[in-house]
Amino acid sequence: MRAGVDLGGTKIDVLMIDGDRDVIGRARQRTPTEGGAAAVVDAIARTVEEAADDAEAGIDRLTGVGVGSPGAVDPAAGTVGFNSNLAGGWVDPYPFAEELARHVGTPVRVANDVAVAASAELELGAGRDLPSFLAVWWGTGVGGCVVLGGRRWEGNGASGELGHTVVKLGGRICPCGRRGCAEAYAGRAAMEARARHLHERGQRTKLFDLMRKANRDRLTSGVWERALKEDDALARELIEDAYDAIGAACASVVNLLDIDGIVVGGGLGTRFGPTGAGRIREKMRPHIFNPTRDPPVRPAELGDDGGAIGAALLVR
Amino acid sequence: MRAGVDLGGTKIDVLMIDGDRDVIGRARQRTPTEGGAAAVVDAIARTVEEAADDAEAGIDRLTGVGVGSPGAVDPAAGTVGFNSNLAGGWVDPYPFAEELARHVGTPVRVANDVAVAASAELELGAGRDLPSFLAVWWGTGVGGCVVLGGRRWEGNGASGELGHTVVKLGGRICPCGRRGCAEAYAGRAAMEARARHLHERGQRTKLFDLMRKANRDRLTSGVWERALKEDDALARELIEDAYDAIGAACASVVNLLDIDGIVVGGGLGTRFGPTGAGRIREKMRPHIFNPTRDPPVRPAELGDDGGAIGAALLVR
Repeated sequence: MRAGVDLGGTKIDVLMIDGDRDVIGRARQRTPTEGGAAAVVDAIARTVEEAADDAEAGIDRLTGVGVGSPGAVDPAAGTVGFNSNLAGGWVDPYPFAEELARHVGTPVRVANDVAVAASAELELGAGRDLPSFLAVWWGTGVGGCVVLGGRRWEGNGASGELGHTVVKLGGRICPCGRRGCAEAYAGRAAMEARARHLHERGQRTKLFDLMRKANRDRLTSGVWERALKEDDALARELIEDAYDAIGAACASVVNLLDIDGIVVGGGLGTRFGPTGAGRIREKMRPHIFNPTRDPPVRPAELGDDGGAIGAALLVR
Repeated sequence: MRAGVDLGGTKIDVLMIDGDRDVIGRARQRTPTEGGAAAVVDAIARTVEEAADDAEAGIDRLTGVGVGSPGAVDPAAGTVGFNSNLAGGWVDPYPFAEELARHVGTPVRVANDVAVAASAELELGAGRDLPSFLAVWWGTGVGGCVVLGGRRWEGNGASGELGHTVVKLGGRICPCGRRGCAEAYAGRAAMEARARHLHERGQRTKLFDLMRKANRDRLTSGVWERALKEDDALARELIEDAYDAIGAACASVVNLLDIDGIVVGGGLGTRFGPTGAGRIREKMRPHIFNPTRDPPVRPAELGDDGGAIGAALLVR
C-alpha cells in the first residue's frame, strides 16, 4: 500500500493506492494557512493516517509516501523551498521528506506537484499518445510541465513556472510581486484578489454571495463555475482574462517547442473540463505562428485524483 | 571544400570552408526583394560561385552546400515554406535543396537558420560549456533555438519561433500580422517600420539621415548603433522596447525550462555584442521567478560568420 499526497494551496489530498492504481482509501484536509513548512508536514502526516483509517489498514502497511508539492522542490535532497502559497510561506529549503518520514515511519519522496500530475497523465492519462506536450496546471497558481519525447524536462530542478510567463509587459501585479505574469490574470488567488478589489470599489458581482452560500471563505473553482452559470459579468470578465493569459502562454510554448498537444489540469482546469480546454485552444489560435500547427488541448483525464496518483508513482 | 550559406532577410553570406572550420573564401550579396523562392535560389547560386572564385577554386571542388534559411524548413524534404521576410515572401514548401543542387551541381542540405547558427555555437562557440541554452537570433526577425542536454530540440520541425512569443496581450502589431509578439518590438524590420511611422508623424530622429549617409536604404544594425552613439531619443526608445521584449521572452523560457544560459546572435545581437547581452540579462532579471536562477547571457562567439559556419556543418 502506497500513499500519494497532492499538496495544494487550498487542500491536502491523500490517496491510498494498492497495486498499480487502485484507490482503496482517501482523506482530505485544509492546507494550514500559517506555521510554515513544519505545519504543512504535520497536517500531511495526519491526513495520511486518516486515509489509512479510511482504507481500514494500519499505517504500518505503508511501503512509501509520495508527495507532489508546489515551490522549489529538490527531489534528490527531498527538500522544498521558495513556497509563497502555503502556510504563510517559507523561503529556505526545508527537509520535507526527512521530516515527514519521521512522522509516518516509511520512506517519503517529494517532487514538484505539476511534474507528478504530468507524469500520471503521461503514463495513464491524456498524454499517453502525445510524444511531447505541455501540462498546464490551472488552480491557485498556474503551474506547467513540459514533456519532450516522452520524458519530463526538469531543467536543473526549477523548471515548470509557466504561470510566470510574461504575457503583458507592464501588466497586472502577480502574487509573486512581478508584473504581467500569466498567473496575475489566471491564478485563482490572483483572480480572487482582483474580484475583491473591484467589488470593494463598488463593482457588482454575485461571486462573494455565492461563496458564502457555499459556506466557503475563498472563491473556489466551484464558486467561479456557479457565477459563470448565473452570467455574472465580473466573473465572466475575469475568466476571459484568464483564458487570454493561458492561451497566450501556451501558444508561445507551441511556437518555441512545436509540441504535440496541451493537457489542462488543476482545480480550475479540471472544473472547466472540455469546455475550458476548448476555450484555451480558441485563445491560443490567434497567436500560433505556423498555421499548420494547431495542437489539441485536452482536459487531464485523471481529474482531481491525478496529482495524488502521480505522487504515489514516486514510491512505486 | 564545403560552402556554408547564411540566408538572411537583408543579405546572403557564403563562406567556403576547408577542413573543419578554415574559411578560405567568402562572398556576400543582397537578398532579392522580389521574385520569391526561385529568385532567392538563383541569388544563392551566384553568391556560391563568387565565393568559390574568392577561394581561387573551381565550383567543381565543392563536396556540398549547406544552407541556413528562415521560414518553415523541412530538412528531410529539403523544402522551405512560410517565408514572409524574403523576396516578397512565399507560403507553400519550395524544393529548395533540389533546385539549388541543380544550379551548383553538388548535394545541398537546408535547415533552419537559427538552428544551424545555434549548432555552430553549441559545437564551436559560446554554448560549448552550456548543457542547455536558448539561442536568440536578433536581426530582421527574432529567431530562437532551444538546446536541451546538448542537443537541439526540433519539435516536429516548426520549433524556434521565439519572436512570436506573446509579450504584450493586445500590444503592437507584428510583421506576421499578430499582436504583441516579441518581434513586433524587437525585429529590425518592425523597429524600422515603427520608426518610419513615427518620423512621418513628426517625431524627430537622426535615424534616416544616418541611413542615407551610410548609403543604405534600410535601418541596418550599423545605423541603429550609430544613432544610439549620437544619443538619438527615438532610437533609444525603440531599442529599449526591443530589450524589454527580448528580456521578457527569454525570462519566460528560463522560468519554464530552467536552462543554463542564453546565447545572443543575429545582426543586431552581434552588433551590440557584450553590451547588448548585458542589457538583455538586466531586462530578464525582474521576470525570473526563482531568484537562485540568473543564467548568463552571452554574445554568440562566432559572430557574423556563425550562421554560415553552422550551415557548412550540415554537409560535413
